[in-house]
Amino acid sequence: MSGQVVGAVDVGATKTLVAVARRPLVGWAQDGRVVRMPTPPDPAALVAVLAETLAILAREAAGTLVAIGIGAPGPLDAARGVILHSPNQGWRDVPLGPPLADATGVPVVLDDDANAGALGEARFGAGRGADPVAYLTISSGIGAGIVVGGRIVRGAHGAAGEVGHLVVDPDGPRCGCGRRGCVEAFAAGSGLERRARESWPVGVRRDGAPAVRTAADVFRAARTGDPAARLLVADGVAALGRGLAALVATIDPERIVIGGSLGLAQRGYVSRAAREARRLTISPSGRPVDGRVVRAALRGGSVLAGAAVLADGALLNDAE
Amino acid sequence: MSGQVVGAVDVGATKTLVAVARRPLVGWAQDGRVVRMPTPPDPAALVAVLAETLAILAREAAGTLVAIGIGAPGPLDAARGVILHSPNQGWRDVPLGPPLADATGVPVVLDDDANAGALGEARFGAGRGADPVAYLTISSGIGAGIVVGGRIVRGAHGAAGEVGHLVVDPDGPRCGCGRRGCVEAFAAGSGLERRARESWPVGVRRDGAPAVRTAADVFRAARTGDPAARLLVADGVAALGRGLAALVATIDPERIVIGGSLGLAQRGYVSRAAREARRLTISPSGRPVDGRVVRAALRGGSVLAGAAVLADGALLNDAE
Repeated sequence: MSGQVVGAVDVGATKTLVAVARRPLVGWAQDGRVVRMPTPPDPAALVAVLAETLAILAREAAGTLVAIGIGAPGPLDAARGVILHSPNQGWRDVPLGPPLADATGVPVVLDDDANAGALGEARFGAGRGADPVAYLTISSGIGAGIVVGGRIVRGAHGAAGEVGHLVVDPDGPRCGCGRRGCVEAFAAGSGLERRARESWPVGVRRDGAPAVRTAADVFRAARTGDPAARLLVADGVAALGRGLAALVATIDPERIVIGGSLGLAQRGYVSRAAREARRLTISPSGRPVDGRVVRAALRGGSVLAGAAVLADGALLNDAE
Repeated sequence: MSGQVVGAVDVGATKTLVAVARRPLVGWAQDGRVVRMPTPPDPAALVAVLAETLAILAREAAGTLVAIGIGAPGPLDAARGVILHSPNQGWRDVPLGPPLADATGVPVVLDDDANAGALGEARFGAGRGADPVAYLTISSGIGAGIVVGGRIVRGAHGAAGEVGHLVVDPDGPRCGCGRRGCVEAFAAGSGLERRARESWPVGVRRDGAPAVRTAADVFRAARTGDPAARLLVADGVAALGRGLAALVATIDPERIVIGGSLGLAQRGYVSRAAREARRLTISPSGRPVDGRVVRAALRGGSVLAGAAVLADGALLNDAE
């Protein structure tokens, strides 16, 4: 018997994941393998390879592809299916939903990766049973997705969850958004790396110790007691705490799920930031913030799972 | 023909407003007068006078009272209809919903005044047609109500919108909540008055100028150029900007409606805080924050209108 499957796509800055999942969605178990590929720099090539890969995966799962969900880094226009700006690919105003729908003949839903991750974790992961759920992704950038009553809160201009660009210090380091001192400029991978380049300009520390180039290097150096690295991490903790506190004071989430490569890898960093957020908020008759912060259960698959939920939801909405 | 009316009650720290409105609610026009009374210190007396007043107002409007909505200062337990703590009355764990339902024979819905104000302004006031709507009340305290898709966001522990207790400076002035340096401790009426007492301990300024005792006095002194008063107001602007920025970065409201006695009276204060919030957030493809901040259209009636909406909603929910 041939069933219906939805396509799930996680378009990352460097790599893209593709999978299919059988309807009705029960838990997050993709049917078959997850295909990993470098994200092509050419949007037309991306559309072609996605259409081809999804057709193969659907065939392997003995299912008919009926809808596709995509999570991608913002800013994007979810309603029109357009990626507004993707610095890594050099994309500006790139339509992704409409050409993929043309190529496959099925509806395509595009949403930003923080929203998709929030939906995936709320439905199938660490946010299951909780309401509201906030999902905070900490990797090269920082963004949050918010799910209230099972639905994504998008805001008036799609900018809900932009706590990564809350300004902590107007005189702070330059951020990718053009401002200074955003949470992201202190606490995200890109921010830590930029600050590391300023602290150790030639990539070699003054004392001849190993080079500090990546965010992971900064954390490693801090663990060995390097004072400059410890300062960068402490600034990151303070900034991340401010971002978490804004989420807590505004929507009082029952659970805050942490995802993203840096968020998943640096547990101590996240729990220090959670304690900082606790200091900055009140919890009337509620659990203190740090007790509500948990790791993403789907790990690298949060966005993929959310993309499947988005695709499934598109079909449910059509039926209404 | 006798129609149905809902009772609307705004229990304030010092005064209580009571009105009735005809169903179906179309715009906010209470049917008949708004009764104003000092809030009785004894909860049993409050229940008795509310039951009596609502019966009289329903009779005057030639309607049958079918439900009652109450907005009251938090913290409270909306589900159980209990006021958890009201420092002005010295109340702790005072049930208000159940005894009023017993006395009147109709369902009673209790919610905190910020949520009720948000609902009133979103449905009938300055938030009409906008989504999400945030309503920020600035008076003796500071609190926010958030309406997304026409529904109040309460959070996991009823603490959504608690931006008044976001800590701006952990070493700052003592706040009513027991912490230091909350937005409220710098920017609300109570905070400004407490700081004024510290700046001018005997209520008379060093130069013999008039006493500065109330928040209104602080603003008046700042306008005449008093340096200490200007500093207090500037601190308030900075703190209020932080609270607004947390709302914007988290839920990207289409409109932020400002209510509360101080919020309505001090326009310059609010617009300076809105400009500060603009500096602290990004507005990707959206209107800058300060363009989204508006005054409550129902003025002192926001909470009363929201209370009517709550009562009406209770009947709609029953019918479902």
